[in-house]
Amino acid sequence: MTLLDKHTGLYTDHYELVMAQGYFLSSKKDTVAGFDYFFRAAPFRGAFAVFSGLQNMLDMIENFRFSDDDCNFLVDRGFNKDFVDYLSRFSFNGNIYAPAEGEIVFPMEPVVHVEGNLIEAQLLETLILNILNFETLIATKSNRIRYVSGDKKVVDFGMRRAQGTGSLQASRATIVGGADSTSNVCSAFLYGIPLSGTQAHSWIQSFDDELMAFREFARAFPEKCILLVDTYDTLRQGIPNAITVAKEMEKRGQKLMGIRLDSGDLAYLSKKAREKLDEAGLDYVKIVVSNKLDEYVIRSLREQKAPIDVFGVGTNMITGKDDAALDGVYKMVDCDGNPRLKISNDLEKITLPGKKKVYRFFENENCFYADGICLKDEVDFDVIYHPFKREKFLDISGLQREELTRPVMINGKNITPRLSVEEIAGYARERQKMLHDEHKRLEFPHIYKVGISKKLMDLRSNIIAELKEKIEQKKS
Amino acid sequence: MTLLDKHTGLYTDHYELVMAQGYFLSSKKDTVAGFDYFFRAAPFRGAFAVFSGLQNMLDMIENFRFSDDDCNFLVDRGFNKDFVDYLSRFSFNGNIYAPAEGEIVFPMEPVVHVEGNLIEAQLLETLILNILNFETLIATKSNRIRYVSGDKKVVDFGMRRAQGTGSLQASRATIVGGADSTSNVCSAFLYGIPLSGTQAHSWIQSFDDELMAFREFARAFPEKCILLVDTYDTLRQGIPNAITVAKEMEKRGQKLMGIRLDSGDLAYLSKKAREKLDEAGLDYVKIVVSNKLDEYVIRSLREQKAPIDVFGVGTNMITGKDDAALDGVYKMVDCDGNPRLKISNDLEKITLPGKKKVYRFFENENCFYADGICLKDEVDFDVIYHPFKREKFLDISGLQREELTRPVMINGKNITPRLSVEEIAGYARERQKMLHDEHKRLEFPHIYKVGISKKLMDLRSNIIAELKEKIEQKKS
Repeated sequence: MTLLDKHTGLYTDHYELVMAQGYFLSSKKDTVAGFDYFFRAAPFRGAFAVFSGLQNMLDMIENFRFSDDDCNFLVDRGFNKDFVDYLSRFSFNGNIYAPAEGEIVFPMEPVVHVEGNLIEAQLLETLILNILNFETLIATKSNRIRYVSGDKKVVDFGMRRAQGTGSLQASRATIVGGADSTSNVCSAFLYGIPLSGTQAHSWIQSFDDELMAFREFARAFPEKCILLVDTYDTLRQGIPNAITVAKEMEKRGQKLMGIRLDSGDLAYLSKKAREKLDEAGLDYVKIVVSNKLDEYVIRSLREQKAPIDVFGVGTNMITGKDDAALDGVYKMVDCDGNPRLKISNDLEKITLPGKKKVYRFFENENCFYADGICLKDEVDFDVIYHPFKREKFLDISGLQREELTRPVMINGKNITPRLSVEEIAGYARERQKMLHDEHKRLEFPHIYKVGISKKLMDLRSNIIAELKEKIEQKKS
Repeated sequence: MTLLDKHTGLYTDHYELVMAQGYFLSSKKDTVAGFDYFFRAAPFRGAFAVFSGLQNMLDMIENFRFSDDDCNFLVDRGFNKDFVDYLSRFSFNGNIYAPAEGEIVFPMEPVVHVEGNLIEAQLLETLILNILNFETLIATKSNRIRYVSGDKKVVDFGMRRAQGTGSLQASRATIVGGADSTSNVCSAFLYGIPLSGTQAHSWIQSFDDELMAFREFARAFPEKCILLVDTYDTLRQGIPNAITVAKEMEKRGQKLMGIRLDSGDLAYLSKKAREKLDEAGLDYVKIVVSNKLDEYVIRSLREQKAPIDVFGVGTNMITGKDDAALDGVYKMVDCDGNPRLKISNDLEKITLPGKKKVYRFFENENCFYADGICLKDEVDFDVIYHPFKREKFLDISGLQREELTRPVMINGKNITPRLSVEEIAGYARERQKMLHDEHKRLEFPHIYKVGISKKLMDLRSNIIAELKEKIEQKKS
């Protein structure tokens, strides 16, 4: 089973194919081009994002083919037959550079670079944006929830309100970002991630009596029994019934794993539940909560010292609410050997031209200091400049550095070692530790410094000056 | 090509399988149960939703099977072998009732009803919620955008920021809700919906000169040529270049179809562009705009009389921003012949018990008046009551009525005629016309009346009284 059927050539926007046909017909199909994927603002008004989606993206690119059915469809929709014939033999044969999945990445830096002929680099735009924007968004959201949850467990319960089949990728991304497990069976099957779940109100309702429902569940699942206690009346009926069943289990040498609260004031109810459980000698029974949780609610519950062991997080994590999308873009930076940029009235929307690389500088071996973007062929530089404010710069001489991106696909072949999602999550966790806590604040985080080299700044200035001159000539 | 591979049995939450195993082991697998799908609040603070996703849901239910790989996976994850063996032969053989896709539906009414044995009705919960919640959300969002766009075209440009492969369903749902076409090629292939697209900045950047880029595009696509004019300088270069090319096309007997504005003040720029185009005798050239559009921005552009012909709507439509999810739920209402409900401290969260049907009452043949929910076996009733306020009621005697839901799947067989997405959109459009404009306001819409019959109200009261009595007995 795969995320999509094997052939995914149609997983693109119409205009990518229109332009590809244009390149094909105007004999530009062998022109070499380079594109950068980057985002201009971190999601959730945070300072960073957790890079996720690389493995799915590379798998889909390797399967980016046009079947006979696809080709017939494109001819039916008016595409040129010679072009479609070219597509029938198409595969991506270019190179892709990216950080390891799980890496902490920042606004403005070229996270992924794609180089190939114009057609192949253009055709992948939508797929790359669609996969990386989404999975990075969700991993970042999950990471915020992980951050406020401390050493408590976080479980993804979101599938039922996820955006359709996007749930398969989303549940994986919640694990990359730091969730412990998911309720999404299909995603667990596809990606080998940990599964968990409790019971629904319907189980209770299918019995004439809540106590009987609890007893039957405990009998069927003595190992991992979590009882949902709010179907009728949490304090007066649900918790007392759960305690009765827990004591019966003890007599059989079993232990009730937990109870789940899914409504009402979770701070109040979890404290009351803990009291009653402890009074009954059931201090080992865990308290699981769910119901519209997000990083802010969880932070509040923890500030109130609610004795909660597991947070089941649904809609807000799986959809990346309130952002719904990361605004990553894919921009041409190089064509036919020449650096390119998109000018804009809005200074921040001017792109960084040319083939580049990104270095991460370290304050010490355990701590990130700043990222610097330079031209591909630059060997050394001691200062990085604010991307838009020349007056602001940072001395990075002598600091330990690491190149952030590396080749992940060469000549169309995926050369990335296939890691498990838990390994990727482990990497994300390690890198998180190297980021100062000030950058992780939910509100108004300290902005992490991302600068550019002088050569890159000068190249951009020169191209802008040339373009402006052309516009002035046109005007006069 | 299908939305998912053929076998979709794993497309569910872990706890559905846990409960199904519990029903299996406790000999309740043949117990008959009924579940309602409904939502408590319309999305976007609106008054209604456009019911979408039925066809995808039914297709996925017909393919809801467990392959050998699925079964092995479940055994590996600790499920009981006899239960998994049962799953290996599983298919849904129950009945489903629903409105036609595209129907206007309202909070609190049982939109979809599923009846079958406990296991089959339970196992479908996540799939039904995942598909209907999402597609209905997006169709409703698209409908709001359609409503403010009047007779102008609306095109879905959202794939690149959609929630992963959810984009395939989402683009379809935008058409159901009223969009004219999509840029999403894969969705168009899957669902046969209209495709359209323009060009990207990279096309312009791949040439040394914008004018040359426009000329080549016009040469390659004389029929449907739309030029993106904001790569370098919209007013001083982009529009003049587009006019030059349009005049060259005229000499070849061709017509430039349009220009696209993707940044800056769209009201100001579209007026300036219209002026310049008209001055050049190019009044037939359309103006397409994009860039963070939603229903509020489009309403504002139209209030400002911006001369825009086509709205290309991206992220906000495809993700249903700001809601991200419809909060639809799937609740047991009937088990083993007895009506069931979930009680709650929160009055509005108490469910409506029993097998029911929904009638739509008409003010006249062209206009909806109110919806009424009654028990399945009720033949006639003259009054409907507010679901939670007994004092508020409505006389509906003598009004023309229609049953809102009908059987769409019987004994596991899809009996719904397969309509094209455009036919479904056409139905949605017709039904929209029957809804008073006051219910369509973006802010503070007039609430549409949905009431319940006296018999249903009494049934609910009696069950609540019985349950409360049990809780009191327990306490004493």
